[in-house]
Amino acid sequence: MRTFLSPSDLGDLQTAFREAQDIKANRFRYDTLGRNKTALLIFFNNSLRTRLSTQKAAMNLGMNVIVLDVNQGAWKLETERGVVMDGDKSEHLLEAIPVMGSYCDVIGVRSFARFENREDDYTEQILRQFIQYSGRPVFSMESATVHPLQAFADFITIEEHKRTARPKVVLTWAPHPKALPQAVPNSFAEWMVAAGYDLTIAHPEGYELSEQFTQGARITHNQDEALEGADFVYAKNWSAYATLNYGKVLSKDMSWTISSEKMALTNDAAFMHCLPVRRNMIVTDEVIESPRSLVIPEAANREISATVVLKRMLEAL
Amino acid sequence: MRTFLSPSDLGDLQTAFREAQDIKANRFRYDTLGRNKTALLIFFNNSLRTRLSTQKAAMNLGMNVIVLDVNQGAWKLETERGVVMDGDKSEHLLEAIPVMGSYCDVIGVRSFARFENREDDYTEQILRQFIQYSGRPVFSMESATVHPLQAFADFITIEEHKRTARPKVVLTWAPHPKALPQAVPNSFAEWMVAAGYDLTIAHPEGYELSEQFTQGARITHNQDEALEGADFVYAKNWSAYATLNYGKVLSKDMSWTISSEKMALTNDAAFMHCLPVRRNMIVTDEVIESPRSLVIPEAANREISATVVLKRMLEAL
Amino acid sequence: MRTFLSPSDLGDLQTAFREAQDIKANRFRYDTLGRNKTALLIFFNNSLRTRLSTQKAAMNLGMNVIVLDVNQGAWKLETERGVVMDGDKSEHLLEAIPVMGSYCDVIGVRSFARFENREDDYTEQILRQFIQYSGRPVFSMESATVHPLQAFADFITIEEHKRTARPKVVLTWAPHPKALPQAVPNSFAEWMVAAGYDLTIAHPEGYELSEQFTQGARITHNQDEALEGADFVYAKNWSAYATLNYGKVLSKDMSWTISSEKMALTNDAAFMHCLPVRRNMIVTDEVIESPRSLVIPEAANREISATVVLKRMLEAL
Repeated sequence: MRTFLSPSDLGDLQTAFREAQDIKANRFRYDTLGRNKTALLIFFNNSLRTRLSTQKAAMNLGMNVIVLDVNQGAWKLETERGVVMDGDKSEHLLEAIPVMGSYCDVIGVRSFARFENREDDYTEQILRQFIQYSGRPVFSMESATVHPLQAFADFITIEEHKRTARPKVVLTWAPHPKALPQAVPNSFAEWMVAAGYDLTIAHPEGYELSEQFTQGARITHNQDEALEGADFVYAKNWSAYATLNYGKVLSKDMSWTISSEKMALTNDAAFMHCLPVRRNMIVTDEVIESPRSLVIPEAANREISATVVLKRMLEAL
Repeated sequence: MRTFLSPSDLGDLQTAFREAQDIKANRFRYDTLGRNKTALLIFFNNSLRTRLSTQKAAMNLGMNVIVLDVNQGAWKLETERGVVMDGDKSEHLLEAIPVMGSYCDVIGVRSFARFENREDDYTEQILRQFIQYSGRPVFSMESATVHPLQAFADFITIEEHKRTARPKVVLTWAPHPKALPQAVPNSFAEWMVAAGYDLTIAHPEGYELSEQFTQGARITHNQDEALEGADFVYAKNWSAYATLNYGKVLSKDMSWTISSEKMALTNDAAFMHCLPVRRNMIVTDEVIESPRSLVIPEAANREISATVVLKRMLEAL
Repeated sequence: MRTFLSPSDLGDLQTAFREAQDIKANRFRYDTLGRNKTALLIFFNNSLRTRLSTQKAAMNLGMNVIVLDVNQGAWKLETERGVVMDGDKSEHLLEAIPVMGSYCDVIGVRSFARFENREDDYTEQILRQFIQYSGRPVFSMESATVHPLQAFADFITIEEHKRTARPKVVLTWAPHPKALPQAVPNSFAEWMVAAGYDLTIAHPEGYELSEQFTQGARITHNQDEALEGADFVYAKNWSAYATLNYGKVLSKDMSWTISSEKMALTNDAAFMHCLPVRRNMIVTDEVIESPRSLVIPEAANREISATVVLKRMLEAL
């Protein structure tokens, strides 16, 4: 595996799930596979789960790990071509990327949507340059449009907890104080459809996601209707994708917060969220602390999804 | 061992001292004990010695280590329950702690007193949540009220250098430009009494420490009298503990600085300080550079105290 | 090897080059040499290549690595003696250095010129204190006046690409928006002469480097003349060294930028730069992206130069 952005990079998802279970049963089973191999984890943005779980995954495989926080203790990077570099950016990505590639075997990149230009974000400008110029396998640790390590962990979690072969999964928008990227809902939608689940996406008007990711899902503006009969409720905020409003907050409607009353509409659904979560904005204390909340096992599966991905990349070196 | 906050967590201190000497003679004696075990070191505050010595200790035992600086590159954490999280804090400790616990085997936490509320500090609100929710053994890397890795290293240092079975140890307040927590003097007092030493605490009026930690010590406001016959002088600044003045600087009296004249009052005492130390505020250049200064071997013993603590935690997993 | 600042620390450079080639052929050949040895890498300043390549080098040798960013998450350090430390600096280097030395086996230090006092910079005040007080082998990861890991990598790169026994090497000043240290040109000049190459240094008037480093080189203010017949062109900006203008930017003359027209004057020279590089200030996009640009292999050789240096230090422990 040379890149990891979408479910198709993994091939058959049931095979990947069995591999995940195999690793979960003994996460050190392949602890010599990564001997003298180095994972470089590059963060352009903040991270808790991804930072820790991906380090842990690499160490599970016996790899060396280098963590680089680009905005702390490194040089600011220019990303545009042809610029006279007389400002505060000391280095160009076109040099930095092959240099970073020369010191490692596998690269993970966290680089959020910048909301300056939808075209730049949706062509994954930064991540694509790493893929093109690093000479190494590259995986997204949440890039401008996707968060596949999260969606893979979500898929593993649903497989572990589902009570029917084809559960009804609801992805619902929920309010949040700040503008957030669409990466998590994009990948979640893409992976749920790829997994063959019955996916419904609920959001207020104006919050339509890119059809590139939501193909195969039912879309509604009525949250209550969507929740009916749901087996899994995945709450998440995102900002607008539509051209004129790209990256804008159009609503903070607190009637979309997932509460016990909302969960009562479901088929005793499990509650999911990728974390970090704003309590009492996205979801009430009561729901997130309930026995049907899967947020912690879901986060714990991030170690598993990352271990599978790194293992696949090591095997293909 | 599931927690490490106080001397009682270690059991018999002489046994712990012998274990420390055994490790000091060969610090890699147990270098397979930590194979495929991960220490997560979480810093809410700055650190030099603790950061380096605890990493070194974990590596001595063959562990993997992940360092997390919460305020650099991670999310700001909410610590209050029931809050509508619409501000700058993206994640609640109630999610963050079990998630962090899921990626490691042992957790160290540095979380200083905040001086906002004495009750919160003295119930060790942050550390207790890690103990309660992480599912992992937790040790303090200086928390609101204690710094047991330091006090254990101080105890090892005194055992190594004492010239009588029961030395006279003096803990003396000294001036400092800023308000400092009571964690170091609290733990030092607690450990010195637990070790059976003859402990005197000297400080200006108003600087009384919590009796929870000073029980068994003699307390005086006369530094010169305290120093008479001392075998070890441990200088340290702390802010007021008393209810109305909690966390306040009541004095910067430079007559409390430890100088050669002060040391001349002692029984050729050794000088100790936990570091970092403000030279010519806490202690003169002359004293800290003298042959009787133990500040460097004392700091070096931080690697030893941390190795013993991590070893005990690994053995109990 | 106890210190690494200059080519003489390595002894015979051809022997060092063969060692570098041996390691490049199998960079894990000595991966048990560093078992249970710890490299402490201390950064007072930003770093990308040095940070990554030196970590990688230490891991190639099986060492443990601790990275310390002094200005992030540690204490600010006082460097002057005799000061009453009542300001924002919590700790003195005189304590911090031996403490850091006690937790590791080898120390790398990045500490740029501060441009406050030429005497302080040119006596390598910070690095010398590490050498004197740490009790450990110390190597420069770019200090006030030298960047020997870079110059050693440059030497390796030229040996690998030279087409004559004694190539003509041109070090040329080029414009930059900010004041930069002289460490890279100092070391480059020193190493090129030590390697026995034919070295010409070109710069505008007022940019003379310290003769301590340029002895044996031809110096000119005419860049075009210098470039004639060059086999290697090494572009770099630096600020003034002369007493009255120390650390000042005297020129931003864009006619010194290395362009295709400039390269046409040479003997089909290879282009080199230590990176990070300001594109279209130091060098045009066209030249740095040309097939004769060696900037990426040169940076990749940083892993090799650091591996040789750490190997030599481990062998001498």
